[in-house]
Amino acid sequence: MTKKMTGEDHFLDIIDRHFGQDRLSGTAREHLVLGRGDDCALLKCPDSDEDGSICLSTDLFLEDAHFRRRYFSPGDIGHKGLAVNLSDIAGMGAEPLGFSLGLMCPKEFDEAFWDELFQGMAELAGRAGVPLTGGDLSGAAKLGMSVTVWGRRTVGGRFVRRAQCSPGDLIFVVGRTDVSGGLLGALGLARAGLLALEEKGRCAVKLYPEATRQHLRPVPMLDAGRLLGAAQGVSSLMDLSDGPARDIPRLVGPGLGAELTIDSGELNPELHDFARETGADAVETAVLGGEDYGLLGTMKENAAERLLRDIPGLAVIGQVTETQTLRVNGLPFTRSGFDHFG
Amino acid sequence: MTKKMTGEDHFLDIIDRHFGQDRLSGTAREHLVLGRGDDCALLKCPDSDEDGSICLSTDLFLEDAHFRRRYFSPGDIGHKGLAVNLSDIAGMGAEPLGFSLGLMCPKEFDEAFWDELFQGMAELAGRAGVPLTGGDLSGAAKLGMSVTVWGRRTVGGRFVRRAQCSPGDLIFVVGRTDVSGGLLGALGLARAGLLALEEKGRCAVKLYPEATRQHLRPVPMLDAGRLLGAAQGVSSLMDLSDGPARDIPRLVGPGLGAELTIDSGELNPELHDFARETGADAVETAVLGGEDYGLLGTMKENAAERLLRDIPGLAVIGQVTETQTLRVNGLPFTRSGFDHFG
Repeated sequence: MTKKMTGEDHFLDIIDRHFGQDRLSGTAREHLVLGRGDDCALLKCPDSDEDGSICLSTDLFLEDAHFRRRYFSPGDIGHKGLAVNLSDIAGMGAEPLGFSLGLMCPKEFDEAFWDELFQGMAELAGRAGVPLTGGDLSGAAKLGMSVTVWGRRTVGGRFVRRAQCSPGDLIFVVGRTDVSGGLLGALGLARAGLLALEEKGRCAVKLYPEATRQHLRPVPMLDAGRLLGAAQGVSSLMDLSDGPARDIPRLVGPGLGAELTIDSGELNPELHDFARETGADAVETAVLGGEDYGLLGTMKENAAERLLRDIPGLAVIGQVTETQTLRVNGLPFTRSGFDHFG
Repeated sequence: MTKKMTGEDHFLDIIDRHFGQDRLSGTAREHLVLGRGDDCALLKCPDSDEDGSICLSTDLFLEDAHFRRRYFSPGDIGHKGLAVNLSDIAGMGAEPLGFSLGLMCPKEFDEAFWDELFQGMAELAGRAGVPLTGGDLSGAAKLGMSVTVWGRRTVGGRFVRRAQCSPGDLIFVVGRTDVSGGLLGALGLARAGLLALEEKGRCAVKLYPEATRQHLRPVPMLDAGRLLGAAQGVSSLMDLSDGPARDIPRLVGPGLGAELTIDSGELNPELHDFARETGADAVETAVLGGEDYGLLGTMKENAAERLLRDIPGLAVIGQVTETQTLRVNGLPFTRSGFDHFG
């Protein structure tokens, strides 16, 4: 009689069954511009039109699901818990306005631990210019947090959704520019960092400084998000959280596919070192990725020259196709990427 | 060298140290109408004035901190996880517009479990007219959720904050009306239910049907919240989540106190049964309370007749005083109430 849960999609099926929108009040129905399925929900504000909406996203950041205390410093935890949420705002082409925090607090940590954790979070909040507006604290067996973050469309811009592209549109990524390698220096780096940290613990930081930093202290692409929200010719946008292999189907939407061209010479040298050491393929590692927290988007071909010039860290990696498959460097790519339920 | 954490206030001190509002962007500063410390934060929307704000609140609902699977059914968990959040919207005198959910999912539960949990949540969401707009799912060792809920001021109304009252204002509670006893039939009931469930497990449901129901399936006072948001003469309002003994100082604000008059004949008969069985005092149990999820407010004396007539379940329990003490039926009340860190 009992039916086991098979993964995230199984949960989403049950949720869809129960949370249809047929029983909403008129006010709530009018308020919800965009519901589940994108980086953020879009909420029309009381006295505004759709342009005056707020975008909002909630993410969990839990010990042993999303981070390990074995190799995350308290400051890393505070930083990353907020960073992954800000990344969702960038993924809408929006700018963040504030965040709230639900914090699960095991008894064993002392004041110094919490002080470092909040410092890591507050430094990023200060750079992003977002206030902590409130939240909740609770005792818990394991450390964890739930962050809700919201934002507005950038001046003169719009919210850029997923799955608004057409065959022929170019696929791009935007990653941090302060890493080694070519234009794709950040792609796949966090995956290598994660796997190295899992195997070697904190020692991995010395061996793979850029890769581990990218896992421990990802930088949300807020400036690029703002620019893309205001730019002409951007057809779809999202944040790259589960890796290209899983995120590209969400980006292009049902019925479409992608043909990627990944020049391994553009990847980060540490990714090559990692691939060599573990017997993995560097390009495959980059395409599987996961927790990149760069941006992933599509643009009209005629916008490419302008966007490549105006947005630091932007690199074209392929094109949207009419067939629902993912191909990389001429071959079908069949391995699936990162799954928190996996 | 290590300094142990002493409780919630210790956390809030560290948070205040790090999250000052001096490093905000101009946009974010203008956006934040009301920050930490009330039932909800108030967020000014992009193209609106303060009246077009959104109120927003985040609460955690965690296994063994806020509920036990030993006596909560999956449907109870889904219901209460949302109910306690909607109660914060009612505590601002506002009406809810939507909610997002971060769900921590242990592996051992089957489809039937999740189906019941979501059904309990969806029934309440349907009655409240609020859509689930998105969120996050993660594997976790223990079941838990983080709900973020938001709302708007009711038509013709306003957000009613805490600590806006003056000495002489009357203190009132609003509780559900479908319970036995007099006007204070709901007060303290959830505390009795919790303590009975902790001692006897699910058997307590037969012995104390109303008290256990109030703990397992609290009803947010959304209609009363809307009415109070639109009414004249309401000076302060909040939701009653930690019990009168802890919440009244927050309601009246620094420097003020309260003189309560609680007629034990108005309390629920199950509260008396519980007090008799455990050797507790019924009035003291009601004043300690905790998880009542009624409303607690203050009003000008000349508004009392109208509000008592118009708002079902409203009862006057005392008066705001100039001295920063809590007195109940003529005596100082010194026991402190419910603390999730206690």
